[in-house]
Amino acid sequence: MTNHRAVLVNAAVADRELDAHDLAGLIAATPENLLYLSGGLEPTGYVVSRYTTNAFAIAARGAYDAPVLVAGLGEMGQIRQVCPPGARVVHFGSFTRYVNPDAELDEHEAWVKHWVVDTPGRPNALEALVAGIEEAGLASSRVGYDERGVSPEVVAAVSERLPGLELVPAFSVLRRIRLVKTPEEIERLTQSLRLTEEAITAALAIAAVGVEEEDLIREFRKTVVGGGAGTLANEITFTRRAAVGGHAIQDGVLKEGDIIRFDVGCRVDGYCSDIARLYAFRGDVDPRAQRIYDAMVAGEERAIAAIRPGVSAREIFNEAVEGVKEAGVPEYKRNHVGHAVGLEVYDGCLLAPGDETVLEAGMTFEVETPYYEIGFLGIQIEDTVVVRDDGHEMITRLPRTIERVG
Amino acid sequence: MTNHRAVLVNAAVADRELDAHDLAGLIAATPENLLYLSGGLEPTGYVVSRYTTNAFAIAARGAYDAPVLVAGLGEMGQIRQVCPPGARVVHFGSFTRYVNPDAELDEHEAWVKHWVVDTPGRPNALEALVAGIEEAGLASSRVGYDERGVSPEVVAAVSERLPGLELVPAFSVLRRIRLVKTPEEIERLTQSLRLTEEAITAALAIAAVGVEEEDLIREFRKTVVGGGAGTLANEITFTRRAAVGGHAIQDGVLKEGDIIRFDVGCRVDGYCSDIARLYAFRGDVDPRAQRIYDAMVAGEERAIAAIRPGVSAREIFNEAVEGVKEAGVPEYKRNHVGHAVGLEVYDGCLLAPGDETVLEAGMTFEVETPYYEIGFLGIQIEDTVVVRDDGHEMITRLPRTIERVG
Repeated sequence: MTNHRAVLVNAAVADRELDAHDLAGLIAATPENLLYLSGGLEPTGYVVSRYTTNAFAIAARGAYDAPVLVAGLGEMGQIRQVCPPGARVVHFGSFTRYVNPDAELDEHEAWVKHWVVDTPGRPNALEALVAGIEEAGLASSRVGYDERGVSPEVVAAVSERLPGLELVPAFSVLRRIRLVKTPEEIERLTQSLRLTEEAITAALAIAAVGVEEEDLIREFRKTVVGGGAGTLANEITFTRRAAVGGHAIQDGVLKEGDIIRFDVGCRVDGYCSDIARLYAFRGDVDPRAQRIYDAMVAGEERAIAAIRPGVSAREIFNEAVEGVKEAGVPEYKRNHVGHAVGLEVYDGCLLAPGDETVLEAGMTFEVETPYYEIGFLGIQIEDTVVVRDDGHEMITRLPRTIERVG
Repeated sequence: MTNHRAVLVNAAVADRELDAHDLAGLIAATPENLLYLSGGLEPTGYVVSRYTTNAFAIAARGAYDAPVLVAGLGEMGQIRQVCPPGARVVHFGSFTRYVNPDAELDEHEAWVKHWVVDTPGRPNALEALVAGIEEAGLASSRVGYDERGVSPEVVAAVSERLPGLELVPAFSVLRRIRLVKTPEEIERLTQSLRLTEEAITAALAIAAVGVEEEDLIREFRKTVVGGGAGTLANEITFTRRAAVGGHAIQDGVLKEGDIIRFDVGCRVDGYCSDIARLYAFRGDVDPRAQRIYDAMVAGEERAIAAIRPGVSAREIFNEAVEGVKEAGVPEYKRNHVGHAVGLEVYDGCLLAPGDETVLEAGMTFEVETPYYEIGFLGIQIEDTVVVRDDGHEMITRLPRTIERVG
């Protein structure tokens, strides 16, 4: 685990976006926005009781290192461990913890005792949210809220309690701010990629005739969780099975001459990775497959070469498709050739027609040029690229050829 | 993986609840309700792009083996693999897959080709949802929808398109139906518990002086994913650290005489397990800890003994608390002493004051009596019980004493 105490918000970008939408602050509630604005909070209740757990992070413009965290009593320990020291807490609920009168409490125990035993919580999440908005100094302001994580009923109730408050939907504003990563975020993304690369290598190490796709997936995931990370959807498929996609039952059996396709990732401290690679198991690559693969790589490389501040997502898409066509697959068609990556795998921007997002330094993208031919093969390469002031930086390290394994 | 082709819905309970709310059918959209009503669908998009992925399962009263599945093209392969053979599909979107003209396609490839290549998808999720409601024969009916997974905008748009349709919020109806499990669901829950027990044993096997909590957690999770299951929030904490809860940084170091507390589970084919146990690492249990533990077990056992059809959740709570008090902890206070378990860890019913749910055969509960004393110890036992016609059945198998390890 990295040190979670970092502020993740890019303050300059956040200020700019809030100004553009005339907002004095933001309220986050969906898991990704909450983690982002809080500096790291991932409520346990979001896993075990998603629909009865409420938590919010509230930040006033410019005060991203001092968010107000509105959460149930059960999250107090985690808040101390992961959120910035400047964070303020408004808690709700009640929970019985006893205190050993004979013990000298350490700092963490004393913190939990202070919040859970000594300090009465607000009676419910709504009362706490109202108090949190006041604590953040936003009770008479125009504030953006995370409409994908706050119900219309809660918005109505808060608005009634705080008549000077104007709440406007801002899920897309939060996501837009999140597009431009800080160095801390890029570090987490990089760690996530390194672990995915390690897990691909571990899965390949058990490749043998008769092994099932599911065996490789389990080996991949063991490496991911053994590295302290979280799992995501993972596809590891053999040859023709790689062309149909979306397997729930992964019972393909490996044989000599198979192509093993990985489209995999993991999640480190909230940040997702996504890598696609092909490997040739004990045999030569079919010449037509190699020719198509080379065209996909050519398209991906042309897209990556075009990545720099000021270019639009749509333009990157066009470069990739033109690159593939010119390299020998003139019929190539795609909906997109990649996506922003971060707290979500698809992190709010597509490299696709119609996406006019203008690239900025600090944005992070997956670039991919898949080609699926049913009855033949699923061909794909996918890499992670950071937009830099002078262009871009490739973060993925694995070789980009079809390596031989087995 | 078990065979996913089973229908999970308890038809008699579903009919009864729909009648009670005068509903002709249900529309599911949240991950758990979608999995339930569809028979197993877990869209990949829900993991990689939660906020742009739409999927719905629609079932008319009595026709739970023939749900209408509304999903993007990318889910077609999975639908064939996991959903009941009687399921009907309404798909949307477009996606380029080529077809090898020289290949003879197998059944799965032919299915994907049929849906993705040969059959134009509806232009978007809204159009597909409207068509799906018509396909289910519900366009002029009163239908319950999953308001935690369907936005007010979608409800308004669908209602405008289908003026004869009356949509009413039914998230709680779906959850209420889900309380009463089928044998297939109980089998999945049991498998989930067995794997959690196996993972606890695996974690204990590496317990040694100097090992960190995080090491045991990683070992636990490796066993879980190695068994093909999904991870959940897991707490493995040592002695005093077990009393404060909610650690995000799990860096406690094991020493002789420590109590290791597990509060852990996993997810098998959608179904969650949840077990709490204490283990004594190389030393005797403190007499006061043992006395409190014995009282907690006495309360848990009294609660379990009271579990049978016709008793209310509130009454089970009272039995547990009275049992603990009489067994020697007269000051015992709790918010709840357990919860329903299933597709969610907290599956819609609490063993708590104010919960008047009446137990029925097939319901599945966690029963737990935790005692947290800051500066001393976190004490907990938690077991899974199925309500049976003649009482109850304990599913957890691990010994319920504080076993010695190390």
